[in-house]
Amino acid sequence: MFIIGERINTSRKAINEAVGRRDASFIQADVKAQIEAGAHLIDVNAGSRSGSELQDLSWLIDVIQEAVPVRLSLDSSDPRCLLEVIQKPRNLPMINSTTAETARFVKIVPVLQKRECDIVALCTDDRGVPRNVDQVLEIAGKLIRDLEAAGVKRERIYIDPVIQAISTNVRAGLMAIESIKRIHREFEGVKTICGLSNISFALPKRPLVNRTLLALAMRAGLSTAIIDPLDKKLMAILKATALLLGQDPYCKAYIKAFREGKLED
Amino acid sequence: MFIIGERINTSRKAINEAVGRRDASFIQADVKAQIEAGAHLIDVNAGSRSGSELQDLSWLIDVIQEAVPVRLSLDSSDPRCLLEVIQKPRNLPMINSTTAETARFVKIVPVLQKRECDIVALCTDDRGVPRNVDQVLEIAGKLIRDLEAAGVKRERIYIDPVIQAISTNVRAGLMAIESIKRIHREFEGVKTICGLSNISFALPKRPLVNRTLLALAMRAGLSTAIIDPLDKKLMAILKATALLLGQDPYCKAYIKAFREGKLED
Repeated sequence: MFIIGERINTSRKAINEAVGRRDASFIQADVKAQIEAGAHLIDVNAGSRSGSELQDLSWLIDVIQEAVPVRLSLDSSDPRCLLEVIQKPRNLPMINSTTAETARFVKIVPVLQKRECDIVALCTDDRGVPRNVDQVLEIAGKLIRDLEAAGVKRERIYIDPVIQAISTNVRAGLMAIESIKRIHREFEGVKTICGLSNISFALPKRPLVNRTLLALAMRAGLSTAIIDPLDKKLMAILKATALLLGQDPYCKAYIKAFREGKLED
Repeated sequence: MFIIGERINTSRKAINEAVGRRDASFIQADVKAQIEAGAHLIDVNAGSRSGSELQDLSWLIDVIQEAVPVRLSLDSSDPRCLLEVIQKPRNLPMINSTTAETARFVKIVPVLQKRECDIVALCTDDRGVPRNVDQVLEIAGKLIRDLEAAGVKRERIYIDPVIQAISTNVRAGLMAIESIKRIHREFEGVKTICGLSNISFALPKRPLVNRTLLALAMRAGLSTAIIDPLDKKLMAILKATALLLGQDPYCKAYIKAFREGKLED
């Protein structure tokens, strides 16, 4: 399981304040903690700082790279902003994200052609969010075709099935799980990715629902999760699931995580 | 998900002592707590009390039925004992269990012919525990054929794939999940059942592994689990999984469990 740490996001109060006061060491400490907890790549999002997103995102990229040689996911809904910062990361960047909406897709293509990068592609199109698994697969197919036509290699494509809220759609969990399974079966070589928290919108005990979904999504073949790696209960179920799916020979990673105090029961 | 409460077992110290001093109200309170927590059926096991198993099991059945009209699972490895007590339950009993071992199977048949009952059938045979999913399915097939030949209706058969320890076999989790899935696919109308705790033998944080397996087994189609319904973290993941699998319209059961303080995070 490839883990993208989601904490460097200015929608989080502490991060927003640290960006506001240009507190590099606060950001660097958070990134180091995420990597120590298991993150393979760090998502960076300054989208909530309208007016200064480009400067703030640039600053974040610089201070993170100053401290650690980690890969970065550049998370912005503004393609002009992405076009400006795409050359900054020292390692292969990830772009988070495009959709199949025509207006959004055509603006992401120049970014992808400026530099090779991983791309997160969300399964929504001009009709909105998909209503069933077949529609998810149809949009995934279109995204893959269009991205390949734009020169993106298949192994660089991360399809996000767009998880909906189970409080408004009783089939939202099954849709997510079945979409992930079918994307892997029907589009060889493509990766899948998702955030978890939409699923539990408006419910109590949201982390419980989110981390249970993670276990089921991993069984369905999920390649990559965008999560908070400092959430010890989430990481505990992730390690236990990897163990149960036969991905942890001699239970080594599980026992190591236990010894390091990382398995919160 | 059909839940069998596993607590009335003399291998548990408190239960063994209560049986020893014939403390009916202790047993009755425990059974009521299990039902209140969600158990549909109560397993009763006095197997650790060698020499007095029959008298102790009979006493347990009587005191439980005196208090509550719940269904009982008569849990003994001694067919003579089962033959003695099979008429005692007021409601349809479950027998826990037989295997495909010839010597064991032939002795359970008279019990099944004395009274209609549900039967838990473990997938082991004269060769021992199965080494792969195909062997589990082969033994399940033999058990179903032989039970049906003995007059047992298919809907009364609960196949247990026999979960092994992941510490000694890295594929034990996958074997369990895939066996459950294939049993449902290949033997229409048969139910599946399992205990969870074998999977985590010799590992730290066993409940974490056990309850993660429950989520994955439910996704595979597990009909019935033998668990401790007073384990709030286990019940929490069970409710969250049912929600995610689309089995909880309007999130009603999940929200009810939350309001009753039954979802431990």
